[in-house]
Amino acid sequence: VSTIRYIAVVGGTDVDEAVTSHAEEVGRLLARAGAVVVTGGRQGVSAAVSRGAVEAGGITLGILPGRSREEGNHWLSYSVVTDLGDTRNAIVVMNGDAVIALDGAYGTLNEIARALIDGVPVVGLGTWELRRHAVDDEAVVRVSTPEEAVETALRLAAG
Amino acid sequence: VSTIRYIAVVGGTDVDEAVTSHAEEVGRLLARAGAVVVTGGRQGVSAAVSRGAVEAGGITLGILPGRSREEGNHWLSYSVVTDLGDTRNAIVVMNGDAVIALDGAYGTLNEIARALIDGVPVVGLGTWELRRHAVDDEAVVRVSTPEEAVETALRLAAG
Amino acid sequence: VSTIRYIAVVGGTDVDEAVTSHAEEVGRLLARAGAVVVTGGRQGVSAAVSRGAVEAGGITLGILPGRSREEGNHWLSYSVVTDLGDTRNAIVVMNGDAVIALDGAYGTLNEIARALIDGVPVVGLGTWELRRHAVDDEAVVRVSTPEEAVETALRLAAG
Amino acid sequence: VSTIRYIAVVGGTDVDEAVTSHAEEVGRLLARAGAVVVTGGRQGVSAAVSRGAVEAGGITLGILPGRSREEGNHWLSYSVVTDLGDTRNAIVVMNGDAVIALDGAYGTLNEIARALIDGVPVVGLGTWELRRHAVDDEAVVRVSTPEEAVETALRLAAG
Repeated sequence: VSTIRYIAVVGGTDVDEAVTSHAEEVGRLLARAGAVVVTGGRQGVSAAVSRGAVEAGGITLGILPGRSREEGNHWLSYSVVTDLGDTRNAIVVMNGDAVIALDGAYGTLNEIARALIDGVPVVGLGTWELRRHAVDDEAVVRVSTPEEAVETALRLAAG
Repeated sequence: VSTIRYIAVVGGTDVDEAVTSHAEEVGRLLARAGAVVVTGGRQGVSAAVSRGAVEAGGITLGILPGRSREEGNHWLSYSVVTDLGDTRNAIVVMNGDAVIALDGAYGTLNEIARALIDGVPVVGLGTWELRRHAVDDEAVVRVSTPEEAVETALRLAAG
Repeated sequence: VSTIRYIAVVGGTDVDEAVTSHAEEVGRLLARAGAVVVTGGRQGVSAAVSRGAVEAGGITLGILPGRSREEGNHWLSYSVVTDLGDTRNAIVVMNGDAVIALDGAYGTLNEIARALIDGVPVVGLGTWELRRHAVDDEAVVRVSTPEEAVETALRLAAG
Repeated sequence: VSTIRYIAVVGGTDVDEAVTSHAEEVGRLLARAGAVVVTGGRQGVSAAVSRGAVEAGGITLGILPGRSREEGNHWLSYSVVTDLGDTRNAIVVMNGDAVIALDGAYGTLNEIARALIDGVPVVGLGTWELRRHAVDDEAVVRVSTPEEAVETALRLAAG
């Protein structure tokens, strides 16, 4: 049972069609690879990636901020309520063997930073560029397509 | 998707054969009723109820205290790591539409009390008797068999 | 700085005059002994013990469930917001070198149980009697007066 | 009591002399302004800002990641243990009416992002530059000196 791969996918909640389409494709490819998709369980990227995964026969887990499963989108195989508010972001990324980030605002930045604290690999598709005052390294592995995102995440997760 | 019933099962970590057998039977009956079994994911009652459920074709979620899925027992369909230590007890019971408690020590008492704070129905099979200084009501619905525990929990969860 | 003694005081939120008077006296005595009083920061026992402590020149910390300090009672020297809801109960008791429980309902039971999980000594003044199915020991040290509660808590805290 | 101003200060744990000196000066100025200084309670910027504040007669609160107050640095007036690990970062910044960030790595980025989610003003002194893929606004108010950092934070906190 413990050999299942879990991939966390994080990103914006208010996203355009191009991001939605990318997220669905990421979900579809993760499902085909047999990975469990973990998200924050709500709208935007979480909904699109879960829809893509479930429609391809995959499994999706949503880690919700409140107390009610009603908050979850319609494409969660299983949901977990936490009543932790935005503090549940930490639990979302902690549950990925790797994280894929698409688009996103401060919530996504918060999740990327938490993954980097924990040493979880982060793959970025059109998301935050991190540049520290005096540091040049690029902590997020930047990719250009959903295919590349999933392939890279699965490779790093296996690492 | 949201019509799935989730039942949290809590109890001792160091249990005798009679309790183990009861917990396995509870898991089996919950699986047959189509309920998702949520536990703290580790030993004792959590392992026995998950084993019973999974062997009967059910789904089990383990909400783990640490950062590693390796902590989980071998009968978890999916696990969620939290890094919250014993504070994750709150998340275990919050995820049940009803809670079944078997045997158990202070961890179980902590979980029963949290469920009662939240208004989640608690069914007790050989567990703590709660008697408040000046109150006579019995907050935990006491039952005598696994069959009665599952039937009562599912009825109260539907409530 | 690290030699300060912290005592957590937990109890009911809707309490009668006798309990209020006991809680105020507990606060007063803890302040005179130089202990920092930690509570959940809201009404009932938390407010009374904080009032007693602050009026006697002591220091009180309130660990609040929400995001706003406005939730706190008027006798907190300093407050800490958590946005953890009732899950913050764990943090309240974790911050005591010993815990004093007065009266109280399920929230207090939840806190007593957490303290016992953590091995933090619990002194009870008119609160829950814990009796496990097949266990006769009394986990909570029962006392009859505020003086005895404070004296016992300070002795056990010094461990 | 509720009119006290709380300012959270976050930053690197392994910092050079220049950053240490800046942090001490920030602490000193916050103490003189009567603000309570909230930090993660450990080394680097947290220790330096707390030292500066306490030596100037101020009050410092440290929100610690583990269970033991021994983890805290020597300049905490009061400490709060959480057993939340790095997830306690959320509680540190949530307790500021404004946040001052100095230097720092991913932990600091995580805290800045959380403050921005919550709408808490962030003042940056030699810390992360945030630039979102398609956004040009600068979410962190950038300053050049400790004086400017404290003055700006207090002004925004009053906002």
